[in-house]
Parts: sequence; structure tokens; C-alpha cells
Amino acid sequence: MKVLKTKHMGFCFVVKRAVNMVLKEINKNRGVVYTLGPIIHNPQMVKALMEKGIIPVDDVSQVKDGAVVFRTHGIKKEEEKQIKEQGLRIIDTTCPFVKRVRKRAIHLRKNGYKVVIVGDANHPEVKSVLSYLDNDGIVLQAPASIQSKKVGVVSQTTQNKDTFMNVVNGLIEGLDELRVYNTICESTAIRQKEAVELSVLVDVMFVVGGKNSSNTTKLYNTVRKAQPRTYHIEN
Amino acid sequence: MKVLKTKHMGFCFVVKRAVNMVLKEINKNRGVVYTLGPIIHNPQMVKALMEKGIIPVDDVSQVKDGAVVFRTHGIKKEEEKQIKEQGLRIIDTTCPFVKRVRKRAIHLRKNGYKVVIVGDANHPEVKSVLSYLDNDGIVLQAPASIQSKKVGVVSQTTQNKDTFMNVVNGLIEGLDELRVYNTICESTAIRQKEAVELSVLVDVMFVVGGKNSSNTTKLYNTVRKAQPRTYHIEN
Repeated sequence: MKVLKTKHMGFCFVVKRAVNMVLKEINKNRGVVYTLGPIIHNPQMVKALMEKGIIPVDDVSQVKDGAVVFRTHGIKKEEEKQIKEQGLRIIDTTCPFVKRVRKRAIHLRKNGYKVVIVGDANHPEVKSVLSYLDNDGIVLQAPASIQSKKVGVVSQTTQNKDTFMNVVNGLIEGLDELRVYNTICESTAIRQKEAVELSVLVDVMFVVGGKNSSNTTKLYNTVRKAQPRTYHIEN
Repeated sequence: MKVLKTKHMGFCFVVKRAVNMVLKEINKNRGVVYTLGPIIHNPQMVKALMEKGIIPVDDVSQVKDGAVVFRTHGIKKEEEKQIKEQGLRIIDTTCPFVKRVRKRAIHLRKNGYKVVIVGDANHPEVKSVLSYLDNDGIVLQAPASIQSKKVGVVSQTTQNKDTFMNVVNGLIEGLDELRVYNTICESTAIRQKEAVELSVLVDVMFVVGGKNSSNTTKLYNTVRKAQPRTYHIEN
């Protein structure tokens, strides 16, 4: 049996960097390190980190002292405020591409655009971006018509390109101005492209990653369209 | 035989205004009034005005004195400069919606966008807008890929909506930022919509207007798709 692998696979540099930042902190032996939610959507990695004393919590109020990690998906505006008020030590592993989405979205809102985020309303990245807009934004995953003169669009970094373009296309009609920032992460796009290309050359495809990972799930769904014999496995 | 008419038909208010402005000037008896190109793309109207002493010329250099009319489609930047230097009297009938296209395009270029004009490169409106960009713009009527980080889009006012959206859709992929101004004129869009709706209720359609009119030709082509028995007549 031949096993073929895509050129780009595994954690992106931002996730690797995040894990390293947290490990560096725990090695300083300054006490417990908390992460707000799982630092990445990969149960095995989260478990390995927990064994080293890195504890995911659901709510800032559960943390009384020590260090708090802002995970790669970013943090909510109100959580950031609370953490700063509590004077907790901050380790910010937020993905720079996620910060760019946030920056673009804030810029658009400041300039009078109704902001559309193409993404999953339940994903922490989208929740984070929306919180920095004081929740004054619209989250879409399918075409819709928006009643506003000026509409600005950003994308969840791990969004599928076709979905993104579908939503944008649907918005154009009836608007005076549409301003679109393509904030899809290249790592995601490259992995999707390579995986689809490889999938048609093989008999079976395995997409390996967290079952709770939006990114891996989208990769799986994308590949499955090209290769029906595709499986999403975690380990 | 029943003759049905669309609700909105005939000259738009800007063309009516232009004709009135020119007639008002000629009635002052201050000498010949020149228009740069035909004031509108309607030979019968141009002939009627010529009989009153309103003369279309191809080139500013043909005018030595008197009044010069900027027609509804707008004027080229270099022509405007030359006319001002010659100290000629100016009657500016440029359509305000055309001026808005120009303003948006200049704004985009100033802010670092590569400017795309969706329109016909040979149309005076498009030539006018392009001249105010110092010819640093791209005219498209079909989807194309542009190698630029930031692309801004405006439309010829009389552009067909489907063509406009087609071009915009083609541009989205591969860009960091796309900024779209929908500068299609409502009068045009309404006339196209009403004409198509009426065309399927009748046995034959007549679209009446200048054979040299981009607007009328597009209206004819749009209606013809819904009603094959459609004729473009001038009088």
C-alpha cells in the first residue's frame, strides 16, 4: 500500500508558535496557566498540555490569579477588558491573521460600513471579531440581501473560498458600495487545494484533525466532494 | 391593435435639462453655441438643435469663440483644460451621475486602488472618466483577472447590471481588497426592468431611440433576450 501526503500539512506556524509560547510560560514555574477555551481545536494536544498544568477554562471569572492565555482564535473584547482589570498576566497567542480580520472589521465599521463577517456565528474567531464591533455586525454563510448603502465584508480566516465568493456575489446587487477584504488564510486555502488535488489520485483519503476543529471539518467536506471515500479521523 | 407603453420612457431628466440649458443659451442671442460631439446620442434631436444654431464639433480646436457645451456624457480632462485656457463660455450639462462615477474613480485612484471601469472603452462617458484618471485605469466588459492588491470598481452609468456583476465576480478571487461602487444609473435600470416585463406580455416590442445610443442599444439587446420579436427603431 502506498501512502501519499500533501506537501503542506500539520499545524500552521501560528499554532506551533502558540504551543511554544504556552510551554515556555509553564517552564518558568510561575504557577498555573489558564487558557480561555481549548487553545486549539485538537483534543490530543489540549490533553498533553493539561498534563503539564495548562488548564482550559470556560470563563474569565474562574481565574483568580496566574497567567491567562488568549488562544489563537482570539478573545472577546469584554473578556480582554475584564482580564486587564483583574491584573492577570497575559499570554497572547492570537493568530495575526485573525487580528487582521478584527482590524479590517473595526476599520470598516468606523467608516460607516455595515459589516458582514462570512463565517460560522458559533466559532470563537467570529465571536471575537463580532465583540470588537460591539456586536454590530452580520454573520453570513449563505447569500443574503442587506439593507444598507455601504456594506463591508471580511471573512473568517478558515472560510472556504467558494462560500465566501457566494456570499459576496449575493451582496453586490442593490448596494451603492461594497468593500470586500479577502481575509481567508493562505495556509487554509493551500491545504484545501493540495488535498483536493491529491484526493483524485488515490483510492482513499484520510483527513486527520480535531473533530471539533472548524478548519479540519471544512477540509474534510471540501475533499469529500472530490473523493467520496474520504474519512475524518482524529488520531 | 393594442399599444402598451412602459411607465418610464423617453428622455431622462438629465437629458431634458441639457436640452433646456442649450436652448436657453441660444435664446440669449450671444452667438454660436458649440457642443463637443453630439449633445445626446439622438440624431433627430441633434438635427433640431442644429437648425437653431447649435453646432456639434469633434474637436475643441475648431472653436475660436462663443459658448461650448459639455455634453451629458462628460468631457475629457485635457479638453476641459484647453477650453478654460481659451477663455470660452462654458455650459456644463454633464450628467450628475456621470460626475459621480468620475468622483468615485478619482477617489479610488488617490487611495491606492487600481481602478476598473466596467463599460465600453469607446463610449465618451468612459473616455471622460478614464481621462480624469490620467488614463491609469482598466476598462472591462467581461471578467478578467487583475494583478493588484487593491482593486476599485466603478461602472458606466448605462451599464447592464448582469455584465457589471459578472465582471465584479471575476475580480474577487485572488485579491486582498476589492472596493465596488455600483454607479449604474437608476433610470437605465428601471427602463430595462420595465421593458423586459412588458415584452413578455406583447406580440412585438419596439425600442425607440438613437441607433448610435449605447443606452438604447443595450435596452434593445436586453429586451430581445426576453422577446425575440423586438425591433430597434429611431423614429
